[in-house]
Amino acid sequence: MSERLNVAIVGASGYAGGEFLRLALGHPYLNVTQVTSERFAKQPVHLVHPNLRGATRLRFSPLAELQEADLLVLALPHKESSTRFDAFSQKAPRLLDLSADFRLKDARTYERFYGEPHPRPELLERFVYANPELHRDALRGAHYLAGAGCLATAAILGLYPLLKYAVPARGDIIVEGKIGSSAAGNRPTDAGHHPERAGVVRTYAPTGHRHEAELMQELPGRFPVHLTATAIERVRGILVTAHVFLPDGYSDRDVLGAYREAYEDEPFIRLVTAKRGIHRVPDPKILDGTNFCDIGFALDNDSGRVVVMSALDNLVKGTAGHALQALNISMGWPETLGLEFLGLHP
Amino acid sequence: MSERLNVAIVGASGYAGGEFLRLALGHPYLNVTQVTSERFAKQPVHLVHPNLRGATRLRFSPLAELQEADLLVLALPHKESSTRFDAFSQKAPRLLDLSADFRLKDARTYERFYGEPHPRPELLERFVYANPELHRDALRGAHYLAGAGCLATAAILGLYPLLKYAVPARGDIIVEGKIGSSAAGNRPTDAGHHPERAGVVRTYAPTGHRHEAELMQELPGRFPVHLTATAIERVRGILVTAHVFLPDGYSDRDVLGAYREAYEDEPFIRLVTAKRGIHRVPDPKILDGTNFCDIGFALDNDSGRVVVMSALDNLVKGTAGHALQALNISMGWPETLGLEFLGLHP
Amino acid sequence: MSERLNVAIVGASGYAGGEFLRLALGHPYLNVTQVTSERFAKQPVHLVHPNLRGATRLRFSPLAELQEADLLVLALPHKESSTRFDAFSQKAPRLLDLSADFRLKDARTYERFYGEPHPRPELLERFVYANPELHRDALRGAHYLAGAGCLATAAILGLYPLLKYAVPARGDIIVEGKIGSSAAGNRPTDAGHHPERAGVVRTYAPTGHRHEAELMQELPGRFPVHLTATAIERVRGILVTAHVFLPDGYSDRDVLGAYREAYEDEPFIRLVTAKRGIHRVPDPKILDGTNFCDIGFALDNDSGRVVVMSALDNLVKGTAGHALQALNISMGWPETLGLEFLGLHP
Amino acid sequence: MSERLNVAIVGASGYAGGEFLRLALGHPYLNVTQVTSERFAKQPVHLVHPNLRGATRLRFSPLAELQEADLLVLALPHKESSTRFDAFSQKAPRLLDLSADFRLKDARTYERFYGEPHPRPELLERFVYANPELHRDALRGAHYLAGAGCLATAAILGLYPLLKYAVPARGDIIVEGKIGSSAAGNRPTDAGHHPERAGVVRTYAPTGHRHEAELMQELPGRFPVHLTATAIERVRGILVTAHVFLPDGYSDRDVLGAYREAYEDEPFIRLVTAKRGIHRVPDPKILDGTNFCDIGFALDNDSGRVVVMSALDNLVKGTAGHALQALNISMGWPETLGLEFLGLHP
Repeated sequence: MSERLNVAIVGASGYAGGEFLRLALGHPYLNVTQVTSERFAKQPVHLVHPNLRGATRLRFSPLAELQEADLLVLALPHKESSTRFDAFSQKAPRLLDLSADFRLKDARTYERFYGEPHPRPELLERFVYANPELHRDALRGAHYLAGAGCLATAAILGLYPLLKYAVPARGDIIVEGKIGSSAAGNRPTDAGHHPERAGVVRTYAPTGHRHEAELMQELPGRFPVHLTATAIERVRGILVTAHVFLPDGYSDRDVLGAYREAYEDEPFIRLVTAKRGIHRVPDPKILDGTNFCDIGFALDNDSGRVVVMSALDNLVKGTAGHALQALNISMGWPETLGLEFLGLHP
Repeated sequence: MSERLNVAIVGASGYAGGEFLRLALGHPYLNVTQVTSERFAKQPVHLVHPNLRGATRLRFSPLAELQEADLLVLALPHKESSTRFDAFSQKAPRLLDLSADFRLKDARTYERFYGEPHPRPELLERFVYANPELHRDALRGAHYLAGAGCLATAAILGLYPLLKYAVPARGDIIVEGKIGSSAAGNRPTDAGHHPERAGVVRTYAPTGHRHEAELMQELPGRFPVHLTATAIERVRGILVTAHVFLPDGYSDRDVLGAYREAYEDEPFIRLVTAKRGIHRVPDPKILDGTNFCDIGFALDNDSGRVVVMSALDNLVKGTAGHALQALNISMGWPETLGLEFLGLHP
Repeated sequence: MSERLNVAIVGASGYAGGEFLRLALGHPYLNVTQVTSERFAKQPVHLVHPNLRGATRLRFSPLAELQEADLLVLALPHKESSTRFDAFSQKAPRLLDLSADFRLKDARTYERFYGEPHPRPELLERFVYANPELHRDALRGAHYLAGAGCLATAAILGLYPLLKYAVPARGDIIVEGKIGSSAAGNRPTDAGHHPERAGVVRTYAPTGHRHEAELMQELPGRFPVHLTATAIERVRGILVTAHVFLPDGYSDRDVLGAYREAYEDEPFIRLVTAKRGIHRVPDPKILDGTNFCDIGFALDNDSGRVVVMSALDNLVKGTAGHALQALNISMGWPETLGLEFLGLHP
Repeated sequence: MSERLNVAIVGASGYAGGEFLRLALGHPYLNVTQVTSERFAKQPVHLVHPNLRGATRLRFSPLAELQEADLLVLALPHKESSTRFDAFSQKAPRLLDLSADFRLKDARTYERFYGEPHPRPELLERFVYANPELHRDALRGAHYLAGAGCLATAAILGLYPLLKYAVPARGDIIVEGKIGSSAAGNRPTDAGHHPERAGVVRTYAPTGHRHEAELMQELPGRFPVHLTATAIERVRGILVTAHVFLPDGYSDRDVLGAYREAYEDEPFIRLVTAKRGIHRVPDPKILDGTNFCDIGFALDNDSGRVVVMSALDNLVKGTAGHALQALNISMGWPETLGLEFLGLHP
């Protein structure tokens, strides 16, 4: 088809790149022309991503052999996309970066959270933060997209309507993320070795998580947000629980109204409001492979505390799917293309 | 669309019925008109199957309110389909039964394995055993389909080419199935209670598994097959390992040739032949939600023992997907319709 | 041995009672004379608790056959201990209750959190809240012990030194518990059915958890504490993360000093202060079967937020072991008797 | 204490060495004087084995600093013990080797299964194969002990009574092992990385497993035994299922008699014969941390097939505990010293 977009995925042996590849192979308007990996150069894709066995004949190329394309999807370690920007931008008119390099608009904030100056601060304003729910208009027609952080996306989508609608009685917002092992990438480590990682409840980032910067940038009101991240026994999935204190007088109905208004027409956000049964709260368990973000809340009328719960698959709505949804918007395509999977129960 | 088939799923609150519903909602030619459940009558489907939140507005009806349809999918406890056959056959010209009621052709075998006479033995010959790989021709145009057993399907697909091609040196074939908890259904039990079931390696059926009867019926040569089933820590998935002793002189190449010949054109069978990497054998882990059956083997040249490994998702290729594939064939539709999901890694 | 205490465990087929039985069988001064269960009356203990296979010849008796003993350990559903108090107190001079019936000192607080008046409010003052670290002196010689709540104990032990030592800059304290499936008991339920429970990250109590009452009662300063509980994929184990904002000027060293001072001589509390390796934070994973409570913290100097992490096994330090430690104190025995298991790695 | 044995554990940062250390710290007659590790030299033991936090002040030494002791426990990669034998034997009069170096009596068999000549074949006869149930007499007073393979021990203990008692109708015996991730050691690998390893049912050794050699050596009758090993979702634990065809006329009672006769007085073997409840078969789930081997069987009267099930913890009864039991025998100490842990339920 003449309208198909030729895509090269740079760093496709990792989990984020592999997930974008899986989605792209099922997308009617995307044509994956090349996938790169240094470590697995020349090997067939299915040796690394066995789910793609029989679905593609692609083999990994070394980065040195990268060809021109309509779009480069960059799934590289942090700092690679920014330091190699000129080379990449000459290969394709469109860049979709899945790293953290272009998420923050403020170079000083980047330096504070990443511990060194940004390699190319002048580029920051050229990328759109690829959160479709918050920046749909800015994404239309955009050529440079900065994929959002997985934990940040779960927290931002969960808190956005509440903070847009109400001013917390007390500013400090506590955000706890529980997260699966795939978020740490595919490189074997001591901490990720199965006998050590299986069954943990390990708070690997009690304070100082880098995604705090994205929350501060994207959430209305710029309230102090405090993020804590705990690794749990899952491969995929994030549940964020956030604690916000509302002033007196807010009701369940008020809060629900804020979420309904904000997300009424969103194809990938589902409000969980069931009062019966065993599925009354968002749970990443049922979201593996889907682009949904399920959101629910509970209000304690005595204290005014709202507990917001937000669940997603870190590799789909947290990374590759969220980015593909943004790409669909930027291209003027139907927003849900390639993202139709409903997920499994049980 | 005039060509859409109106489908009612009887017993849709269970895992098999729920899985068929999930697949049917994504199928271009199926229109689910009704779903029944006694226990959850009048409740919205998504309270039971949270993955379908937002995907359908259907509510469960009691069986007493079952309407006419083009097709009834029967996902009921064993014996329900056969004892209620007359009522069901009056509601629809097509029946797809997911229970064990119509799998066996021989009423005496049924009685031996199920411990009582078949309620309607005269019906057995009217149902086609819905294994597309073995009975594709018989399925074309069939109106009554008997869904196969999940463990039986994994074993049959794994052993069929080998036994069709070679006569074992020694007749007795050992088949071991490792299986997830969803195969036991959605009714809470002591054995299925999470603290008791989590992390088990529990050989719940060392001998006398009912699916042995399907193996004996379907496999070439009618060799004695001995089935052992062990519950492991997964929700979905089956791995079957089968041990066959070949006469002297058979090579890897001979065995591979048999599988290639048998399954060359099969859309849902993938031979796993990788010699490198960490994905060299079939593993149900990467098959959740897919209709694939991955098959591999290893030959011990000293002893002539072939170990056949066969993996699938018990609810899809083991039940609902396998049955939908058979339905597609019976209707003359493209065989892969509604079964395109590739599965996830990691 | 003349000095051995004859113990009857009432409700010994449940997880709490079974765990106390396991510990009692290894205790040099305890002699288990009887175990009761209605559901499993007359059956050998090992049919219900297979870990005790070969360790005891005890069979369950119905409650109606309860004999006199030196000590009754009550592991019954809530309200059973208080409504049957007179009968139990006539059977033995010592009662160790593992339910919530006698934990709260204030009958109004009980009514607020449990939704009905306390059946025997006049008894509340006669029981000592069995937290050895906070109430060691009161436990000495006590005859009526009220076992503490598992989640409450993790939170209380984690927060006690900090709140005793410092006045939070802002009163509201957020406490999040992540908890395994055994805490919900051994009765099969829809929510606890393995296919539904496996792999969840399910915030079953975002607000209104009953253990909040114990925190308010036991923690210094009576600051408002807000508890949220999330079910995760473990059978045993709790991790509590608590968020406290300290006034300006507190250092890591100050906080560590508070914990050292409070717990210096505690045999079952371990401060986790490692700065290297992969085991730098408390993790319930390595505590299965042990009576340890591992505690660590992280201080964000910018915001003054301290994140306290506290881990334990809900059935041991959270229930039966914590209670046995209290019993050892009440009897004047060495505090660690029967609680020596170090736990496993990996 | 004069009678305490000074023990140095060589290679104590691994799982086998760490487990022996855990057991030794609770053993009344063992005094651990030194633990070695190259990778973690100078670091405190609890940074690697967090379960030992507070239980020991030991730090790892490099091998070069190994001191003399009464006993060296060698927990090194294969071939290290045999190539360094002279150095080790000069440091201590007693050696307990946990590797495979001295398990096989026949150097040709070693060469066949390990692919190269044994470095010190003349030493093989000087080591006793440390299986207490089979070689108790030979172990008394022995100074050189060869720890058995974990999978081999599960299979040997399961099959020994049956093969001692009956001659199989057909020689070939199929043995399937299901095994947890700790058996692969503590070195991070692609295959062991949590996102890849979690939830697998991966038959990593369909044929050619090295432990086959131990089975052939130790089992009565020298029947051909065929071993297949599958990795499952556990950290610890092995379940072996073995399939033996008996001649006509054998009854359940005959088989049970054989096991009773063989294991009547064994402190660590438990026959699982329950006909009721949910714990009717051996399951490694309840054996974590224990030295028990639970054994059960099922006989199919039609075919004469006996399915033997044998479960243990690969690091305890499969490695360190089994070896400690042998050491107790060799020293003339009570056989169960340091091995009293009963295990957990749930």
